[in-house]
Amino acid sequence: MYMNKQYNQNKDNIGRLLVQCPDKPGIVAALSNFLFENGANIIESSQYSNDNAQQTFYIRFEFYIEDLINKREELETAFQPLAEEFAIDFAFTYNKYRKRSAIFVSKETHCLLELLWEWQSGDLETDIPLVISNHEDARDIVEPLGIPYYYIPANKDIREEVEAKQIALMEEYDIDVLILARYMQILTPDFVKRFPNQIINIHHSFLPAFIGAHPYERAYNRGVKLIGATSHYVTNDLDEGPIIEQDIERVDHRDNVASLKKIGQQVERRVLARAIKWHLQDRIITNDNKTIVFH
Amino acid sequence: MYMNKQYNQNKDNIGRLLVQCPDKPGIVAALSNFLFENGANIIESSQYSNDNAQQTFYIRFEFYIEDLINKREELETAFQPLAEEFAIDFAFTYNKYRKRSAIFVSKETHCLLELLWEWQSGDLETDIPLVISNHEDARDIVEPLGIPYYYIPANKDIREEVEAKQIALMEEYDIDVLILARYMQILTPDFVKRFPNQIINIHHSFLPAFIGAHPYERAYNRGVKLIGATSHYVTNDLDEGPIIEQDIERVDHRDNVASLKKIGQQVERRVLARAIKWHLQDRIITNDNKTIVFH
Amino acid sequence: MYMNKQYNQNKDNIGRLLVQCPDKPGIVAALSNFLFENGANIIESSQYSNDNAQQTFYIRFEFYIEDLINKREELETAFQPLAEEFAIDFAFTYNKYRKRSAIFVSKETHCLLELLWEWQSGDLETDIPLVISNHEDARDIVEPLGIPYYYIPANKDIREEVEAKQIALMEEYDIDVLILARYMQILTPDFVKRFPNQIINIHHSFLPAFIGAHPYERAYNRGVKLIGATSHYVTNDLDEGPIIEQDIERVDHRDNVASLKKIGQQVERRVLARAIKWHLQDRIITNDNKTIVFH
Amino acid sequence: MYMNKQYNQNKDNIGRLLVQCPDKPGIVAALSNFLFENGANIIESSQYSNDNAQQTFYIRFEFYIEDLINKREELETAFQPLAEEFAIDFAFTYNKYRKRSAIFVSKETHCLLELLWEWQSGDLETDIPLVISNHEDARDIVEPLGIPYYYIPANKDIREEVEAKQIALMEEYDIDVLILARYMQILTPDFVKRFPNQIINIHHSFLPAFIGAHPYERAYNRGVKLIGATSHYVTNDLDEGPIIEQDIERVDHRDNVASLKKIGQQVERRVLARAIKWHLQDRIITNDNKTIVFH
Repeated sequence: MYMNKQYNQNKDNIGRLLVQCPDKPGIVAALSNFLFENGANIIESSQYSNDNAQQTFYIRFEFYIEDLINKREELETAFQPLAEEFAIDFAFTYNKYRKRSAIFVSKETHCLLELLWEWQSGDLETDIPLVISNHEDARDIVEPLGIPYYYIPANKDIREEVEAKQIALMEEYDIDVLILARYMQILTPDFVKRFPNQIINIHHSFLPAFIGAHPYERAYNRGVKLIGATSHYVTNDLDEGPIIEQDIERVDHRDNVASLKKIGQQVERRVLARAIKWHLQDRIITNDNKTIVFH
Repeated sequence: MYMNKQYNQNKDNIGRLLVQCPDKPGIVAALSNFLFENGANIIESSQYSNDNAQQTFYIRFEFYIEDLINKREELETAFQPLAEEFAIDFAFTYNKYRKRSAIFVSKETHCLLELLWEWQSGDLETDIPLVISNHEDARDIVEPLGIPYYYIPANKDIREEVEAKQIALMEEYDIDVLILARYMQILTPDFVKRFPNQIINIHHSFLPAFIGAHPYERAYNRGVKLIGATSHYVTNDLDEGPIIEQDIERVDHRDNVASLKKIGQQVERRVLARAIKWHLQDRIITNDNKTIVFH
Repeated sequence: MYMNKQYNQNKDNIGRLLVQCPDKPGIVAALSNFLFENGANIIESSQYSNDNAQQTFYIRFEFYIEDLINKREELETAFQPLAEEFAIDFAFTYNKYRKRSAIFVSKETHCLLELLWEWQSGDLETDIPLVISNHEDARDIVEPLGIPYYYIPANKDIREEVEAKQIALMEEYDIDVLILARYMQILTPDFVKRFPNQIINIHHSFLPAFIGAHPYERAYNRGVKLIGATSHYVTNDLDEGPIIEQDIERVDHRDNVASLKKIGQQVERRVLARAIKWHLQDRIITNDNKTIVFH
Repeated sequence: MYMNKQYNQNKDNIGRLLVQCPDKPGIVAALSNFLFENGANIIESSQYSNDNAQQTFYIRFEFYIEDLINKREELETAFQPLAEEFAIDFAFTYNKYRKRSAIFVSKETHCLLELLWEWQSGDLETDIPLVISNHEDARDIVEPLGIPYYYIPANKDIREEVEAKQIALMEEYDIDVLILARYMQILTPDFVKRFPNQIINIHHSFLPAFIGAHPYERAYNRGVKLIGATSHYVTNDLDEGPIIEQDIERVDHRDNVASLKKIGQQVERRVLARAIKWHLQDRIITNDNKTIVFH
């Protein structure tokens, strides 16, 4: 528990433990004991038990261990017996090893700009080694920041060739997170399968309303009084992946499609930025087609 | 314009003029002149021109005329030439003639309670001559307020017989507005046709998401992060009528179907109450499948 | 952790443990072990460490123990050594022993109505043995529900006499929570001291703006664009007690004092209801002049 | 009314008329007639009458006149008799003559970045001929956009000298609007008087709470559950000028001063951007210490 003063001085000593296992008595006590005995001070912990038939238990710890990076192997080894005893599916992550994000964008740059804004002000704890686009529109935004910009024209006839290039770049730059910041190309099942729970999209509607193309036009035609945006993990069901975050903004009869888009952009950029932030902080566990987000 | 002191003393002298016509130069000037020449002080006016091909113009005036009720026939007659000149579809309404509302409810009483609360505190300017239900649950809420409660059991096999009784009551009590405050029976096309733009429903989802039955169960299964409610005029396309108002509330992974319902009830009652209030104040014009709501 | 099926069948077996102590390594492990060893399944847990000089640790457990009520003394006794070791300030509470609330109201009944509404629909887990008012306005709302209504006229000259009667009633009815649901009398320091963290007020402004009387008039004069309400524990600094919940609603230049009040009532009733609910669920710990609210 | 197709093709033909005068019968009719007779199609109109003793009437028209710029002198001359008859305080503005804005900033750049973002995406219809700062922090953001950056160090001892330079720049660049985008210097009464209703500030609290310095520290110490931001015209009463827009964001006990600031920045940038947009569209009329904002 004890959050000592070094905490503020050395963020590199912060780690996280994410746990998912069958719900059994004693699990919290066992995990707390493990962390205590390994010199960890728990900074934050959040838990959740679903009430489905299978009764799964989820917990996220954020902890501080002096000289964490040198102790990490030892820590992970020491966890093995516990993991086996409780049949735990787990992950340790380390603040020192920042996730590496690739941003994909097409012509509309508002989401990209928001992410770069948050990143420049230190609120998005990630490295951004590259931006990929099927258009040239965003080059002048990206390159002045010293980030390489890869222009890869795309259309449905050359999808595999395009994705081969993208996959090569993901490998070259050792990418952990693929952010679709209004990237308007459909990805192949093979591409998606390669990056499970790693691709995050922003859809410009309040899903499941207006799945698919032209949501603002359809929102206009339906005469809705609120428009929304949804950030979700990409799976091979179009716009059906686990939802991370949603938000809405009020509109009225005076709004036409163009103004819905303008208003929607404000929602989109804020929803995507929140989702990415939570993903980078390992606050999200997916559970079938849903997310548990530990705020 | 001049809102003289009598305004506060005599709300019975307030009227409204709703206008819908092809958009032509001079229409605002013509209408303003008409009201001025007939001794009206405009309290409020709101206009809207859609930018579709047919270019329709809409305006709502709220005005004060000394001794309005005695002058109303004269006023309506005087309006005829203008109505013809500009091909105006119009309605005059008078504060003194309060609309008469019938509330339909099934087992869940939260929307009914909210409406009765607003009505008792003077915020819902309507008479409520009766409540109709296919259950007995709400009787003890309604009768102590001196409102007759009609219990009409209903199911899909006796729909016509049930509706015949309801129609008879609507006529007997001279009802203007039918409020479906969580009334869980489907209405026949004949019934709906009889009351165009007079039936207002609350649907327990953010339409067009989760049209139809069990929206909270489906919201739960989809893992949405916001749940909503929608108030709309009832047409013969299920949950497809013109939307009047929508709102949402934030939920998270800890919510199960039961808690979604609880949270949703708070949204439902507030959305329905707003929609009814606007309808009673003649703030809504329907335009095909959309509403113009002049706030 | 294991939330077995009896959980749903027997809410009387649910208890809560609230803990506040100096932050030290091992505290979570110790508490988790204690609960595990005493047969508790943890349903929910939330913790917080402040980062002030004194470094205080707070945790709230909600747990299930078979046949809890008969084991409660044993449980509390077993906790003593741990409490001493870690210098814990703690409280056990039991779902079976519902808190008993007295509602105080003056002339405006909207907050009272909201609480009664929530209470009737089972969302406010409390007994309401009486309502006290310095006016007769609310009698007809309260008595039909079978709740005794005490009319105690009040003014600043007879404050002590009035409070003596109120205190006698609090004792007679064994009251745990005093809810000031728009009760417009100032309480004496002696009265307040007698009920620490037990009196919850709703103030009709977004504190610390508009402390004191006539907040809507002052909001109107200042031309604010949002109005708010604040629910807080009552201390002897007027409107300065620990804030539990706040919310706001948008207004504009067209609103006068009367309409600000109307809009404000909607905020007041929802803010007070939330605060009361959290208090009843033992979700609130006060920390000097602030609250920790475990959602 | 007729919004013909040229409207979309030529925004330069759009003008606005803002009117403020004693409330008298016939004023709307007179103004509508005037516009109609001068070939104007009214695109939008909004009115407001306050209910104070002096009964002032306010209206804003947005209109389209073919070849407006060449007709503007004629139009303004033609308006004189009406202006005199009704004692109208008025302003005509023309879309073609974009307002010219100077942005003042200190060290925190989030509001500046938001304005530049909106400006680049075409949503802020203004020219930005220069940015002025008492620090160098924002230079690298501003200059790449081709906007001159004036670094004018400032402190309270050299206030007059600093303002003399600033005034010279305002004149040199013919500035209409001075945007204080987190500019942390107090302005002298002489400076403020020179630019009435032209200086717009963002204050980092929900005014009138936390007037003056360090609002986030004070919000933290008070334990509020919402933090806000307020955009207002600058007058010579500190943080007391007419409020244009306010908004809030939810916070909780886990937030410290640093995170309140982060969250607050999101509110500040959105509140300031809205206020500036409305000012640029001539949607705001000030009325003593309040604003009328015609949405």
